[in-house]
Amino acid sequence: MTTRRSPWMDDDLDYVRDLARTFCEKEIKPHIETFIADKHVDRQLWNRAGDVGLLCLSIPEEYGGGGGTFAHEAILIEEQARVGDSSWGASLHNGIVAHYLLAYGTEEQKQHWLPKMASGEVVGAIAMTEPGTGSDLQNIKTKAAREGDEYVVSGSKTFITNGSQADLVLTVVKTDPDDRAAGISLMLVPTSAEGFSRGRVLDKIGMKGQDTSELFFDNVRVPVTNLLGLTEGQGFVQLMQQLPQERLLVAVSNVAAMEFCLAETLAYVRDRTAFGRPIWGFQNTKFKMAEVATEARVARSFVDECIQLHVGEGLDIPTAAMVKLWCSERAQRVADTCLQLHGGYGYMNEYPIARVWADMRVSQIYAGSSEIMKEIISRSL
Amino acid sequence: MTTRRSPWMDDDLDYVRDLARTFCEKEIKPHIETFIADKHVDRQLWNRAGDVGLLCLSIPEEYGGGGGTFAHEAILIEEQARVGDSSWGASLHNGIVAHYLLAYGTEEQKQHWLPKMASGEVVGAIAMTEPGTGSDLQNIKTKAAREGDEYVVSGSKTFITNGSQADLVLTVVKTDPDDRAAGISLMLVPTSAEGFSRGRVLDKIGMKGQDTSELFFDNVRVPVTNLLGLTEGQGFVQLMQQLPQERLLVAVSNVAAMEFCLAETLAYVRDRTAFGRPIWGFQNTKFKMAEVATEARVARSFVDECIQLHVGEGLDIPTAAMVKLWCSERAQRVADTCLQLHGGYGYMNEYPIARVWADMRVSQIYAGSSEIMKEIISRSL
Amino acid sequence: MTTRRSPWMDDDLDYVRDLARTFCEKEIKPHIETFIADKHVDRQLWNRAGDVGLLCLSIPEEYGGGGGTFAHEAILIEEQARVGDSSWGASLHNGIVAHYLLAYGTEEQKQHWLPKMASGEVVGAIAMTEPGTGSDLQNIKTKAAREGDEYVVSGSKTFITNGSQADLVLTVVKTDPDDRAAGISLMLVPTSAEGFSRGRVLDKIGMKGQDTSELFFDNVRVPVTNLLGLTEGQGFVQLMQQLPQERLLVAVSNVAAMEFCLAETLAYVRDRTAFGRPIWGFQNTKFKMAEVATEARVARSFVDECIQLHVGEGLDIPTAAMVKLWCSERAQRVADTCLQLHGGYGYMNEYPIARVWADMRVSQIYAGSSEIMKEIISRSL
Amino acid sequence: MTTRRSPWMDDDLDYVRDLARTFCEKEIKPHIETFIADKHVDRQLWNRAGDVGLLCLSIPEEYGGGGGTFAHEAILIEEQARVGDSSWGASLHNGIVAHYLLAYGTEEQKQHWLPKMASGEVVGAIAMTEPGTGSDLQNIKTKAAREGDEYVVSGSKTFITNGSQADLVLTVVKTDPDDRAAGISLMLVPTSAEGFSRGRVLDKIGMKGQDTSELFFDNVRVPVTNLLGLTEGQGFVQLMQQLPQERLLVAVSNVAAMEFCLAETLAYVRDRTAFGRPIWGFQNTKFKMAEVATEARVARSFVDECIQLHVGEGLDIPTAAMVKLWCSERAQRVADTCLQLHGGYGYMNEYPIARVWADMRVSQIYAGSSEIMKEIISRSL
Repeated sequence: MTTRRSPWMDDDLDYVRDLARTFCEKEIKPHIETFIADKHVDRQLWNRAGDVGLLCLSIPEEYGGGGGTFAHEAILIEEQARVGDSSWGASLHNGIVAHYLLAYGTEEQKQHWLPKMASGEVVGAIAMTEPGTGSDLQNIKTKAAREGDEYVVSGSKTFITNGSQADLVLTVVKTDPDDRAAGISLMLVPTSAEGFSRGRVLDKIGMKGQDTSELFFDNVRVPVTNLLGLTEGQGFVQLMQQLPQERLLVAVSNVAAMEFCLAETLAYVRDRTAFGRPIWGFQNTKFKMAEVATEARVARSFVDECIQLHVGEGLDIPTAAMVKLWCSERAQRVADTCLQLHGGYGYMNEYPIARVWADMRVSQIYAGSSEIMKEIISRSL
Repeated sequence: MTTRRSPWMDDDLDYVRDLARTFCEKEIKPHIETFIADKHVDRQLWNRAGDVGLLCLSIPEEYGGGGGTFAHEAILIEEQARVGDSSWGASLHNGIVAHYLLAYGTEEQKQHWLPKMASGEVVGAIAMTEPGTGSDLQNIKTKAAREGDEYVVSGSKTFITNGSQADLVLTVVKTDPDDRAAGISLMLVPTSAEGFSRGRVLDKIGMKGQDTSELFFDNVRVPVTNLLGLTEGQGFVQLMQQLPQERLLVAVSNVAAMEFCLAETLAYVRDRTAFGRPIWGFQNTKFKMAEVATEARVARSFVDECIQLHVGEGLDIPTAAMVKLWCSERAQRVADTCLQLHGGYGYMNEYPIARVWADMRVSQIYAGSSEIMKEIISRSL
Repeated sequence: MTTRRSPWMDDDLDYVRDLARTFCEKEIKPHIETFIADKHVDRQLWNRAGDVGLLCLSIPEEYGGGGGTFAHEAILIEEQARVGDSSWGASLHNGIVAHYLLAYGTEEQKQHWLPKMASGEVVGAIAMTEPGTGSDLQNIKTKAAREGDEYVVSGSKTFITNGSQADLVLTVVKTDPDDRAAGISLMLVPTSAEGFSRGRVLDKIGMKGQDTSELFFDNVRVPVTNLLGLTEGQGFVQLMQQLPQERLLVAVSNVAAMEFCLAETLAYVRDRTAFGRPIWGFQNTKFKMAEVATEARVARSFVDECIQLHVGEGLDIPTAAMVKLWCSERAQRVADTCLQLHGGYGYMNEYPIARVWADMRVSQIYAGSSEIMKEIISRSL
Repeated sequence: MTTRRSPWMDDDLDYVRDLARTFCEKEIKPHIETFIADKHVDRQLWNRAGDVGLLCLSIPEEYGGGGGTFAHEAILIEEQARVGDSSWGASLHNGIVAHYLLAYGTEEQKQHWLPKMASGEVVGAIAMTEPGTGSDLQNIKTKAAREGDEYVVSGSKTFITNGSQADLVLTVVKTDPDDRAAGISLMLVPTSAEGFSRGRVLDKIGMKGQDTSELFFDNVRVPVTNLLGLTEGQGFVQLMQQLPQERLLVAVSNVAAMEFCLAETLAYVRDRTAFGRPIWGFQNTKFKMAEVATEARVARSFVDECIQLHVGEGLDIPTAAMVKLWCSERAQRVADTCLQLHGGYGYMNEYPIARVWADMRVSQIYAGSSEIMKEIISRSL
C-alpha cells in the first residue's frame, strides 16, 4: 500500500512533526513508567516543551505562541500517541485552556496568561464537571458570588485533567445560581489563591500517569478582572463554541492510538510464534489485522477531513460530535482486537497495547459521553 | 448541520448531476415495480440514457463517450440510488465493461464497440464467475481454443449482471488451460454468435429487477480479432488492474444507499406515530438515527477521498479493497437498523427500505467477497 | 460432541417427532416452491395435518386435540424448520388461535370451533395490527358496536398471517372506543360473514409462501355469542396473558432455524472448494462455524429452559420477552454469517440459506418488536 | 420477574451458599483494597477459609475435603463475585490443583497434599504457560530430567496464579524433551525446594490483587515420587481431561460477574440523576439494561445447564469450550455497557464496575484463549 500523507500536511508542518517526534522520543518515551508511578508527569516537562516551542503552537506569536493552526496541535497529539504516552495533558493545556483565553479573554488577560502558558511557566486546567453533574453543565453548583471588586468562588470539581500540576484553573461557575445556561461564567482561578486546594489524584482504570484530580474552592477570592471576558453569563455559549475543538482533539488522539495499536500488533504477530509458526501465519490473525487496518484507515480519512474543516473554521457542532463518537468507540474496538492478538501479554502492562486499551476507554466518556454525542447529532437531523 | 458538498464536485459535475437526477426521476423511478416484475429493465432505457448522454460518461469523446472522469460515473450511481433503484446495470456497463475496452482494446475494438455502448445500441456484460469457482478466477474452466482465425469458446458462466440484455459479453476464458493466471484472456463475445445462449434469470434475495443470469457457450466461434488487446494471457493482469475501479463503484453505491436509508427513515419516523407520539420522539429512535447518520457520514468521507484518489489515478489495490469491504458491510448494517425503525412496514416491499435491505446484501459478496478483501488488505500490511 | 437431547423430550414426544418429521418431509418439503409461487400453502395441507393428528396437539382431547403440551407444539415447529419451510402458518393456528379459544372461550365456543380447527376444516387467524398502529394495541380503531343481539364490526387489519385461507378470524376490536385497554375485546369473526373481505397477500421480503394479508370489516354482523368469553373489555388482559406463549413460539422457530443454518452450511462448506481446497479448510470458515455453533447451542439451552418453564406454567412475561428478543436477533446473525459462507450462492433463493435469511428478519418485528421486548424487560428490573 | 433458582441448587447447597456469603462479606469484602495494594490476598485468608470448611469443597471427606460436587465450587465462585473480588485465587486451588491430585495422584500423594490444601496450610498453583509458548502446551521447554531417585526440574513459567503464595506448584514439564504430547508430565514441586524461586508479581491491567507471577526452576530436585501418578508422559492427557472443568470455572465466574454488573448498575442508574431526572428515566438506559439483563439471563441458563452436565460427568470438551468462549466474551460486553452507564465514575477504580471491566478482560485469554476455544469447537463439528 502506498504511504498516505494527510492532506493538511505541508512543509512547515513537517518541521513541526520532526520537532515533536524528537521531543517525544527523548523527553517522554523513556519516562513513561516514571510518570505512571508518580501519577503525573515531571513538572519540568512542561518547561522543556515550552523551551523548544511545542506549547501553544496554535496561539498567535504576539502572545508567545507558535502562530500555527489546529493542525499543529494535531501533530503534537499524534507524536505523543506514537510513543504510547497518555500521561502528559498537553492537548488540554494547548488546545483547550489557551484557546478559551484567546477567544474570550480581554487583551490584558491574554497578555498576562498566554505567554506563561507558552513557556510552560503556567500549566492550565479547565474545571467543568462536579461530583454528581456529569455532562449536565447547566446544573453545576460551584458559584462565584460578587463581593465588591472580587468574586468569591465556592464549590468542588472532579475529573480535572492536570489537576495536581495546574497553576491556572479555568473554572466553570454560576455567577447567577438561579439561572441555568445564562448563569454560567468562566473564572480564571490561580491555584495560588487562598482557599483553593487539590484533592487526591483519582485512581483510574487507565491514563495512570495523568493527574486527574478533585479540586476544592473554599471561598476563594479572585479580582473581578479574572472573569473571562469580563461579562457574566457568557460561559455556556463559550463552552458550546469550544467543545467542537475539544472533541476533535479527542478524536485525533483516538485515531493516532488506532495507528499505534496497528503498528504494535503487526510487529508482535510477525515476531511471535504459536504452534510452530508466526502468529501472522494464521488466517484469523490476517483477517483481524485487515479489519483493524481498515478501521484505522476509515477513521483517519474522517478525522483528516474534520481537521481540514476545522483549520478552515468549518467544523460544525454535529460533525464534531460525530468524529468524537466514532473515533472513541472504534479506537476501543481496535485496541481490544489488538490486545487479544497479543495473548496473555496483552493483559500485561509492560506491553503498550495493555495500557492503550485501558487508556482509551475514557474517550467514550469525557468531553461529552457517547450518549451526549448522539443527542447532539440527533438534534441536527 | 451545514450541508456538505463532496470535495470532488465542480460546476460541470453539477450539470451532470442535474441531468442524471432528472433522468432517474423520470425514466426510472416510475418504472421500478415494472422492472422488478419483468426481472429486467426496459431495453429502451439504455437507448434513452444514451440519447441524453448518460452512458459512458467517463469514456473519451472520440469514442462517443462523455469525456468525463470517474466522478461522472459516481454521480450517476448516486442519483440512481437516490430513487431507490437497483435494477439498471448501468454502472457495470459504463464503469467496467467500457473501461476494459478503453484500457486494453485495440483502436479498432474501441472504435467498433465504444460508440455503440455510449449510444445504448449495445449493452455490455462481463462474465467472470463460473458455477463452482467463486472468487478463484485462476481456476476457471471456460476455454477459448484457437482454430485458425477463430477462437472456439466453450463453457458456462453464472451470476452475470445484464445477462439477459447484453449484446456484448466480455468473457473471461482460458486460452491456455494448463496455465493458471498466465492462461487467462478476455474475449469479446457478441451474444448474436451461434452457440451462445442465456439461462434463466436467477432468483435472488434482492436486486429483483436486475437480470443476473447464467450464460452458456457451446462452441461459440469468434474471430481472433475479438481477443481483447490481441495478446493472449493478459486477462489476469487486466482483471487485477480494473478490480479497484469495480470495487469503488460498489462502495459508491453502498454509501449512496446509506444516505437513501437515512433520508427515507428520517421521513418515516417523523411522520409515523406510536403510543401517541411520533416515533422520532423516542430516545431509542434518536440514538439509532444518530448512529446511522454517523455511519453514513464516515463512509462518505472515506469514499469521497477514494473517488478523489481514483480520479487522480492514485487509488491502490488495498485501499480499494478497504473501501469496498467497509462500505458494503456498513451499508447492510445501516439498512438493517433503518428497516427495524419501520416496524412491520420495513418488511414490506412496498417500502423502499425493504428492497434496499435485500439488495444491499449482495455487496458483501460480489466484486470479491469480504473474505477476499481481507486477504488483499492483509497482504499489504 | 455428544448429541444433546432436549431435557423436555420423552418417549411420547419421540413418537410425535417421528410423525411430524415424516409429515414435513412428505407433505411440505417437496412443495415449498409451489407454496411460494402461490403465496400460500395448499389448503389441503391443513386437512392432511388434521388427519394425521398434527393440528391442535396441545388442545385437550375432549375438543378434538392431541391432549399434549406446549412441547408438542414446539416439536412441530422444529420439524417444520428442519425442512426449511416458513409457509405453513400452523404455529399460529395451533399455538395461538386455538389457545385463546381454550383459555377464554365458553364451553359452546370451544365445542364449536376447536374440533374443526383440529381437523383442519377451519383455519384460524388472529387480527391485531392495523394500518398505522404497530405494537400499540390500545390504540386500535376497529370497533364492534352492539346492536341488539349482534355486534357490527368495522375496520381494517393488516399483516395477518393465514389471512387468505382463514375461516375464523379472532379479531381484536374496541367494544368501547372511548376506553383504551379496557375497551378491547376479542371477536370470533367467521370469514363467511357478509361484509368481510380480504385484501391482497402482502409482498414481503421473505416468508413468501405465507399468506400475510390485509383484512377488511365493512359492517360485519356477528351474533353476540361470538364475543370471546362473552364479557366485554377482557381483550387486553387476554392478549397480555397469551403473548408469552406467542413469543416463545417465535423463539422456538428461531432456534430451529439456527440449527438448520448450521447444518446446511456445514454441509456446504465441506462440499465446496475454493482456491483448491474445501471452504472448510480455511481458518476463517472454522472460526465462523464455531461461533455459529456456539450461538445455536446457547440459544437452545435458553429456549429449552423456557419450554420447560412454560410446560410447567412458570414462564413469566419478561422471560418470554427475553427469549423472543434474544433468539430473533441471534437467528438473524447466524443466518447472515451462514449466508456469507455460501458466497454468491447464498444470495440465490434456490439455496435454503437465502430464504431463511430473508424469512428470519421479520422475527425481530412481529409478536412485539425488539423495542417492545426491551420495554417489557426493563419494566421488570 | 419471578426470582429464578438454579436448577442444581438444593438444601445442602443453600447452606454452603450461606456459609460462603457470610465468609465473603466478612473476610473478603472489607479487605479488597488492601489485597490490591499488596498485590496478593492476606495469607491467613486461606487458613480462615480452611477453618470454616470452604476449601476443597468438592474433594472427598476422606482427604479432608467437603465431600461435595462441582456445584459447591460454583457457589463459592458466585459468592466471591458477589462481593466484587477477583483477588483470591481460590477457584484455581480448589477446582483445579486439588482435582489433578484427586484424579491422578497416588493414594500417598493424595493423603499427603489434599488435607493440607483443605486446611489452607498449603496453597496450590499450577504452572503451564512459559514465556513464549502461550496456548501451545506441547511446545513447553521446562524439563524434568531423571537422575536416580530424583527429577531435576529446569525452566521458567509465567502468568502463574497464586504464584507468590503457593506452597505447591503442579508443574507441567517435559520428561521426554524429544516428544511433544507424549513427553509431558505433571510434577509436584514444593516451593520450599532448593533452586525454586519466584519472579515479580506481574503488572496486569486488572486482577490487581491476584499474585500472578513468574516462577523459576533452577535445577530443582524432587523425589521421583513427586511425579503425579508416577507414570511419565501422562501429562497431556491429564491436562486435556481437566481443562473442561477449568473452563467451566471461568464461565461460572463470568456469569456471576455479569449478574454483579447488572445489580451494581441498576442501583447506580436508579440513584443518580442527569439533566434533572434519574439516569434510569432515559429510554437508552432502560434498553441497555434490558440488553444486559437478557445477556446475563441467557448466559446463566447455559452455564447452569453445563454445571448440571458436569455434576453428572456429562460435560464434553467442545461444550466446555463453548461455555468458556461465550461467557468470557459476553461478560466483557456486559461490563463495558455497564461501565458506560456509570459515566465518568465508571472509569474510577473506587466504583466496582471499573475493576470488573478490567478484571474480566483476561477471561478471553487464560484457560485457553477464545481462538483456541474456536479451534476446539470447530473440530467437533
